[in-house]
Formats: sequence, structure tokens, C-alpha cells
Amino acid sequence: MATHHFTPERYYTAIGTYEPVLRIADGDTVITTTVDAGGADATNTSVTPGGNPQTGPFYVEGAEPGDTLAVHFDRLWPNRTYGFTGLYLAPNVVDPWYVTEIPHTEEWPRAEWELDLERGTATLVSPETKLGKFTLPLRPMLGCFGVAPGRGQAISTATSGPHGGNMDYKGFEQGTTVYFPVAVEGALLFVGDGHAVQGDGEIVGTGIEVSFDVQFTVSLRKGRRIHWPRAENATHIITVGNARPLDQALQHATTEMSRWLMTDYGLDMAGAHTLLGQCIEYEIGNVFDPAYTVACKVKKSLLDILG
Amino acid sequence: MATHHFTPERYYTAIGTYEPVLRIADGDTVITTTVDAGGADATNTSVTPGGNPQTGPFYVEGAEPGDTLAVHFDRLWPNRTYGFTGLYLAPNVVDPWYVTEIPHTEEWPRAEWELDLERGTATLVSPETKLGKFTLPLRPMLGCFGVAPGRGQAISTATSGPHGGNMDYKGFEQGTTVYFPVAVEGALLFVGDGHAVQGDGEIVGTGIEVSFDVQFTVSLRKGRRIHWPRAENATHIITVGNARPLDQALQHATTEMSRWLMTDYGLDMAGAHTLLGQCIEYEIGNVFDPAYTVACKVKKSLLDILG
Amino acid sequence: MATHHFTPERYYTAIGTYEPVLRIADGDTVITTTVDAGGADATNTSVTPGGNPQTGPFYVEGAEPGDTLAVHFDRLWPNRTYGFTGLYLAPNVVDPWYVTEIPHTEEWPRAEWELDLERGTATLVSPETKLGKFTLPLRPMLGCFGVAPGRGQAISTATSGPHGGNMDYKGFEQGTTVYFPVAVEGALLFVGDGHAVQGDGEIVGTGIEVSFDVQFTVSLRKGRRIHWPRAENATHIITVGNARPLDQALQHATTEMSRWLMTDYGLDMAGAHTLLGQCIEYEIGNVFDPAYTVACKVKKSLLDILG
Amino acid sequence: MATHHFTPERYYTAIGTYEPVLRIADGDTVITTTVDAGGADATNTSVTPGGNPQTGPFYVEGAEPGDTLAVHFDRLWPNRTYGFTGLYLAPNVVDPWYVTEIPHTEEWPRAEWELDLERGTATLVSPETKLGKFTLPLRPMLGCFGVAPGRGQAISTATSGPHGGNMDYKGFEQGTTVYFPVAVEGALLFVGDGHAVQGDGEIVGTGIEVSFDVQFTVSLRKGRRIHWPRAENATHIITVGNARPLDQALQHATTEMSRWLMTDYGLDMAGAHTLLGQCIEYEIGNVFDPAYTVACKVKKSLLDILG
Repeated sequence: MATHHFTPERYYTAIGTYEPVLRIADGDTVITTTVDAGGADATNTSVTPGGNPQTGPFYVEGAEPGDTLAVHFDRLWPNRTYGFTGLYLAPNVVDPWYVTEIPHTEEWPRAEWELDLERGTATLVSPETKLGKFTLPLRPMLGCFGVAPGRGQAISTATSGPHGGNMDYKGFEQGTTVYFPVAVEGALLFVGDGHAVQGDGEIVGTGIEVSFDVQFTVSLRKGRRIHWPRAENATHIITVGNARPLDQALQHATTEMSRWLMTDYGLDMAGAHTLLGQCIEYEIGNVFDPAYTVACKVKKSLLDILG
Repeated sequence: MATHHFTPERYYTAIGTYEPVLRIADGDTVITTTVDAGGADATNTSVTPGGNPQTGPFYVEGAEPGDTLAVHFDRLWPNRTYGFTGLYLAPNVVDPWYVTEIPHTEEWPRAEWELDLERGTATLVSPETKLGKFTLPLRPMLGCFGVAPGRGQAISTATSGPHGGNMDYKGFEQGTTVYFPVAVEGALLFVGDGHAVQGDGEIVGTGIEVSFDVQFTVSLRKGRRIHWPRAENATHIITVGNARPLDQALQHATTEMSRWLMTDYGLDMAGAHTLLGQCIEYEIGNVFDPAYTVACKVKKSLLDILG
Repeated sequence: MATHHFTPERYYTAIGTYEPVLRIADGDTVITTTVDAGGADATNTSVTPGGNPQTGPFYVEGAEPGDTLAVHFDRLWPNRTYGFTGLYLAPNVVDPWYVTEIPHTEEWPRAEWELDLERGTATLVSPETKLGKFTLPLRPMLGCFGVAPGRGQAISTATSGPHGGNMDYKGFEQGTTVYFPVAVEGALLFVGDGHAVQGDGEIVGTGIEVSFDVQFTVSLRKGRRIHWPRAENATHIITVGNARPLDQALQHATTEMSRWLMTDYGLDMAGAHTLLGQCIEYEIGNVFDPAYTVACKVKKSLLDILG
Repeated sequence: MATHHFTPERYYTAIGTYEPVLRIADGDTVITTTVDAGGADATNTSVTPGGNPQTGPFYVEGAEPGDTLAVHFDRLWPNRTYGFTGLYLAPNVVDPWYVTEIPHTEEWPRAEWELDLERGTATLVSPETKLGKFTLPLRPMLGCFGVAPGRGQAISTATSGPHGGNMDYKGFEQGTTVYFPVAVEGALLFVGDGHAVQGDGEIVGTGIEVSFDVQFTVSLRKGRRIHWPRAENATHIITVGNARPLDQALQHATTEMSRWLMTDYGLDMAGAHTLLGQCIEYEIGNVFDPAYTVACKVKKSLLDILG
């Protein structure tokens, strides 16, 4: 159970079977950094082309297709004070006729935020809007991360799928464990796209984009086959579906949760579905990117009762 | 500001311009009852055909197209101990291939719940499942209610729209105020479809369906034009979009919230959109019915800062 | 088998259970007129508010819920020379980012066409565009027509459903027979919204809108229950689904066609599905309105082989 | 303008930047073969894993990102007599509740067809259905082909995108020229997935799947940037959008056609949109795969008028 300090030198804007940057063992911890969505590092210097550049891939010894890789986020925290966001709602999240009311500019307009990493806040500093010096508490999360897909694929970090990717779900924060279906030897884990804060849906096309310090610990569940990313935190178990429209993302997440309740919690279908019918909670990841994200949650306290 | 006790004698399964059952004034309170989604009353006797039968319509004196009608739910509570739910996930909320794994029966299978109205709980009593005597705290809400749409329409209580209708959103509970766009003289308010408990999405096709005692108070905002249902509770302001796919429901809700922030909270578009981008919260109403429902929420504490 | 000449005096912008304007018998023919989508008649005089105003309802003696009403279009032809269309693509039929490139005007911009009813052509006369005097052959069709829905509903002529409505499908032209599921006593048939020409999708929000002479003949199929509009012409049998997104409209149309092949053409499921898999043809009705329309077609020549 | 005879030795089930199998020049012709969707060759022997295995990639000298690659299908014809199709409609193309009526089998059920390559027909030979010896004329087409996407991506041949891929559009037949946006050096063209016949939508999950002889000729349009696949045949120009839901695929195709009319046919926006509004024709490619396909067509005869 080694701890690896890894300093990235190159980044990928697709998640696929590339040469591993580090080989780690089941139980190992990695301490590393990620650049922001635009490719700028902790000094806000552009070091790689933008588009959610990823740190990795990390090869997990012993991981094979059909296994599950657990990734626990030990620490996720911005490592600089400059953050930026999109200024206007994306045209695909508002009524089509409303789009014509949004200012059309040649250049994509950006808002800028000052992060106070001690106090844990982000304050809007430009442009001048009626929000004034609007300040929000940090809630750091990773927007885009995942494992290499199978079939020789390499999938753009603009989008998402069963392998993870650009899900922009605020539940992917420090203290959460995320489970991925392993599709290639070594799993090949990538991490990137830190957000200091993000609303549901990532509806201006960004969270507060910033470079991050990232520490995670992997563990392998041999022979445990899952179909979509799963997660758990102190209070909930979570499944995630990625697709368009949202309806389909929700179908994936709901089906995966139904399977989870039946295989791991001893429920029959009637029991699992009845519990889901009255207790399920949905949250929405991004509705900005080519594939949208829906998270499906069940309270652990409900499952504890089942014994 | 009178209080009316109204005992319904007939019910509607469409929301439209029907003969009012009661005329009330701005500020008045109504104490009444609703039957369950299947048409059974407080004695669990079938008194009207099923399909979310509505109590009403209530004619609000002075309400005209272009106004907003506020409906505050003073009290929502089941008035009998028998509740029922669907047993299996609806085929439209799971992966199409998974549908073939769900038991296919001639009759729609129903689960039954015993409500303890003193302790505020619901317990699964049949069929026997691995859930055992699964018990949940009550969280009573109305699934279907709204005001008559314009243009001579009468819209089935199976579905929803700008007028409200079958939204099945768990936020529509006691203590919440809901705002509707008035489309006809007198607004013509309908209420029905009480759920003792309901998970997000109403994914088994029901909440815990039960007859209700309902007390509400109306108030009129003359000349205030809104486009979609809005609401507020102690902590949030809320907008609701009803459409398929979910993407479109979300577009409606987001657009309506953007408009609300700009007209009532003094924000310019850049400010409103920036706040929404990093602070919006989405919740999902039903994904079972012909139109799906998305609620868009903003914390009041964020708006208080704006002064 | 009488022929009725009916001159409308009032019009409806919802399809529902209104007082019949004429009672007709099984086999009867009606010769009447329709105003254009904006409510203007054969003299281009506004006679009723816009929004696809309907002529009717026509009560068909003996029609009951569970029957099918066949409506044969004997003649559909414009009765004036002035037509109009939308000028720009609707924002919901193009990429969301492209919407910002479309000119935004306070008033909805309209193009005007001169119809030559002898030669059967329509020529663009304003505004001046690079198309010049663009001339198209007429292909007259009805955009919006249908029968009263059940459950006390009255559905806006902006949208569509199992009852028909605003489908804007170019296959609904002279010589075609359309079948509707009867949902109320007398069926209550409405007709309106003539288009001299229309592209698939009605993507500028209109066909060439014009008032029409309409002649149709009804026949009743007692006890024949269908779920969605069906049609046939010289070459094809057709089913129509109305919903959003298009995926769902296509599901409705495909399911209805599958049922038709099995009940009326002697096919088992494997045969029906195999035929559909390799021979189905889809066409797209409107993608502009609240519900979209997909038509599913099978060549009669393929069915003749089956004997 | 050489003609290359190429015999494939390996196949890919993703479209990406792999080692070219052949380098060809602008204007060159390639004569080659493709295996069927399941990986079986002209002798119906399995030679590679299934999933629309592709022949290629072919490197086109001089092709660079920002160019357009034209691929003319000189000849597309099955090279064996055995074909197969799916037996039942896919669960995602019918109403969710209808899915429960479709037989559920452990193994995916297959229908088999005998092709007569002289007469140009395909006849159903098993299983026994009420269709009997159902015979259809061949209409050979390629279901899956395209060029390598940019950004280091490799995209599964199960799906489609701006790079082409698994579009299953029956218009991609002999005599058609298809245009792709070049995203990598050499374009890297792949071809595969021949269908002897296919209905719109590929709604049983297959056309009549068979191995093919393929002859195509490439030409390069330097510096011509397009965003989605385009095509032309004797009668139409065509654009293709690939996405889910169909609504979005249609938006892509419509936007691309609007751009094409304005850049190449001298139309202003009002002219291009007015022509599209009354003359556009849509066709549906597959609605089975992760991304759906819509083709948007305009008659060349309409454009000839424009001069």
C-alpha cells in the first residue's frame, strides 16, 4: 500500500488505452495534480491544449476486464486562487426561443473568480454584474475522470459513457468512493477537470474551473462486474448513467441501481423496485456536454434496516 | 378572508373550464378532501372513476388571464390508513432491454401499505418481499393539481403543462406556496392525487396513493404574468417545467428561473446566469407520465445576500 | 349516403367535445371550407382568432368509443391565391448554437406566396431573397384535423395526440383515407389548417398557409379499436405517432404498425417484425409543435404477396 | 489515378488513428472486401470478432484536418449468398409497454436469408413464419464507414458521429458520393457492415447482414471545411446528423444543410430557410444504436433553378 507522488508531464483529451504514466498496486495511493479544463496549471500557465486534459493513465496491477476498480478521493482541493466560469447559460439548457435573447459575442465570455483557499470561498471578481462580489463556499469536485473503455476505443473528454468521463456531477467530491467497470488490462485511470464549485447541470458550460491537488486510493474488486459507474459516500449509494436525452441517462442509472440492490443487498425484484419507487433520489450531472449525466441515490440508512 | 368547508360531490379527470363548485375570494381558505388516484375516498370506497380525479374547480373572484394565483398548502395529510403503490418499475424508466426481465402480468400488480397517521409512518404490508415490514416516514404531497388552461382546453390529469397538472413533485407539500399562471376568468383551481410518500420520478407509476385532507389559502397577484408554475418554501424559490424529454422540461424550468431572477431580484442577465451556473439545484418530478417534470431551485439565502 | 354542403360560422382552436355543427351518417360526404392557420378565409379576411382554427365538429351517427372512423379526403384544394410561410428555421430544429446566428426580430417574419390555382403552383413574392421568384408545384394537405379525445379533454390545435390534431404530415392529402380511434359518441370530427405545400417537419413553423375547400367522406368501422391514427393511400398503409421526442413518436407509430400487420394481415410476430425490419419506411411530420409526428409506412405491394 | 486491389488481413471495431493498411492518392480507386457485421467473410467463415469490423484504414495522401474527403461508391455488392437479420423489433423502437409482449430468449434470435446475386433478390429461409418465402429486391448499402475522428479519439463501430460510423442509412449505396470532414492527417478511411437490404431505422438491429465486394474512389477537397457527413446522388444533396434523440440528429442535419445552401448555392439565410421550409425531405437512418441518424435531403432540380 505505497503512496506515489506523481508529477504529470503530458495530458490527454481522450480517455483510452495510452501508455501508462505510473503502475500502481491494489491499495496504493497517488498524490498528483490536475490542470484546469483549459490546460492551465497551478501557476495559471497554459501547459497543454484545453478540453479537460487528463492526468494519467494510471495502470492498476492485476486489473482485468470484468473487475471493478474502486477509486477513493482522499483529497480534492484547488491549488491556485484563479478560477473561471462561463458567463451565460448554454443554448441547450434554455428554451430555444429564449436563446435569441442571450447576447451573441464572437468570443466566449468568461467570468473570473478569486479563491480563498484558507477560508474555503470563491468570490466573483469580473465582469461587473448586479451580483456584486458574490461569494460561495468551495465544494471541490472532479468533473471528468474515468477508466479506459474497451474495444480499442478512446473517448473524448468532452463526453461520458459507461467508462466515466465528463460527468460533471457534484457528488464526485472528497470522501466519495467511485466504482468503475474495468474494460482493459490495468484499468487505466485518468483524472482531471477540477471544479471549485459547480451547480447542477453545469449549465453555463463550466464549474469554477481551476487546477487541483488530487489524492486518491485505488482498490480492486476482482470478478465483480458492473455496467455503469457507481459510488458511495457517508450517506448514500449512487449509480450514474451517461447518455442523451436525460431520460436515457436516468434509465441507465435506475437499471444499474436496481441490479445493485438485488445482487448486494439481498432484495428480490419486487422488493428492490418497491424501495426504489418510494425512496429513490435523482441528481443531475451535466446537461451541457454531448452525453448528459443522471445520478440515482439510495440512502444507506434505508439499506441498514434490511440487515 | 373567509374559511370554506367544502365537501366534493363530483370529480374531474381533466383540468379545464368546468362549472365551478365554489367561488372564493382573494385571501380565502378552503378546507376540503381529495380521493385517491383510483377514485376511492376516506373510507376506501370507490366513488368516482380513477385517473387522478380532482376536487374543484374553485373560482377565485377577480382572477383574470395574465394574473398569478398563489396557492399556499396549509395542511396536507392522509385521511385513511390504506395506501397502495405500483410494484415494479415502469418500463419507460429502465433500459429497454431490462424491461424483458420484469414479470409481465395481466393485471397491474399493486403493493399495499398501512399508514399510521399518529406516528406519521407507512409500512409495507403486502405482497411479501425481501423488504419485509418496510417502514417509511410520511412526507405527504399532492401529485396532481393546477388551474384551467386557456384556449378552451381541458387537459387530462394523466399529464401536465404550464397549467400544472400531474407533476408528482415531492416539493409540493405542506408549507409550500405554488404559483400558477391564470389563463381563464376565476383561475379555476383543482386539487387531487395525494401521496403519503413518493420517491423522485414516481418510477413505479405511483407514490403511496391515498385520500387526503387538504387545506389551502389562495392569493392573487394581479397583472403578474408567469409562464410556468413557480413555488417557494422556507428555503428555496422553485420553478417547474413539464414536457418530454426531461431535457425540455429542464429548459422550461431553467428559463423561467432566469426570468424570475431578473424581474424580481434585480439581476442583469450576466448576474442571473452566473448565479444559476454555480448554484442551481434540479429535482425530478415524475418521469412516468406523458409529460415529465423538472424542478429548478435556488436557495433563498443566496438571494438574501443580494439585498 | 348524403352529400352535405356546410358553411362554417364559428371555429375552434381546441379539439374536444363541443356542440356539433352538423350530424352526418356513415357513408355521408361533406363539402365545406377551412380558414387558414391565422384565421383568414377565402377572401383573406380575418374571421376568427388564429392558431389552426377548425371547422366542425361533425357528429357521425352511430360512432361510439371503441370504433374506428375512416375519413377519406375526396378533395383538398386552396380556395384563394394568397399564402404565407415562416421565413426562418424554428429554433428547435437547428443546433442550439446556430440559433444565435438567426436574425431576431420583434415581429415574426413572414414570406408571402402567390398561388396559381389553375396551373397548380405557388410562387414566392416577398420578401426579396436570393431565391428570386421561386415556384413550387402545389401539394395540398391538411395540417391539423382529428376527432374529440376522451376523458372530457379538449386539446389545443397547437399540438397532437392519439386523436390526431396538428400533425402537419404531407401524406394527409387528397385521395388518402385516415382512420381515427373514436373516443366519444359521434366521434366529433374537426378539419382545418390547409397547406398548399409543406416540407417535411414544417421546420419554419408553417407550410404555405391558405384557406381550403375540403370535401370528405366518412365511414364507420364498428368495434374496430385502434390506438393511433392510421391511413392508407394507393401505395401504402401508414400509421402515425405523435409525441416528443421524435424517438417516442416513432415508437408509437412502429408499435401501431406491428399490431396492424398482425391483426389484419395474418402475420405472426416474427413475420410482422421481420417484414418491418427490412421494409419499413418512416416519414417525419412536424418537428415544430409541442408534439412531433412520425409516420410509419409499409408498401401495399409487399402485403399483396402475403395473400 | 491508380486502382488498388486490397485484401484485408485484420479488422477494427473502432474508427480511430490506427496504422494505415494502404496509402492512396487523391483520385485513386480501391477494390476490396468487407466482412459481415458478425465478422464472417465471403465463405461465411468467422475471421474476426463481430461488431461491424472495418476494412482499412486507408490513408489518403495530402488529406489534412479542415479538408473534405469525397468517397464515391463505384460498386457495392454482396459476395456470398447467406445473409441474416434480427427476428424481433428492438425494445427501443417500440412502446415500452409493448416490449413485455415480445418473446424473451436467452439467445438473440436470428432470421436467415438466401441471396440470389444474379437476380438481385433475398429470400427468407428460416425460421418458418407467416411471411413464407418472403422475397425482396436487393438494395445493397454500407451500414458503417467513416474517417478517423480527431483529438486522439477511437470511436466504437457500434455508434456514429461527425466522423460517420454506424449510420445504417439506406441512401449510402452504389452511385452515391459521401463527404467527410477530415480530422487527422491522411483522413484514414474505414469501410464495413454491408447490408443487402435494410428498412429505415434498422429496427430489428440489422439489415440483411452479409460480406461485400466494395469499390470506391476518393477525391480530396482541400480547405473545404464541413461539420457533418454530406452526400449526393443523381437526384439529391444530403446531409447527415448522428445523435440521440432523433431531434438532435435532425438539428445537426438541418443546420449542416442550411450552411451548405448558403456557402455553395448562393442563398442568403432567408432564401435558404424558405427553401428548406417547403422542400426539405428527411429520412431516418438507424434508431437502434447509441447514436441515431437523420438524413436531410434537397432535390437537385430545385437547386438547378437557382442558377
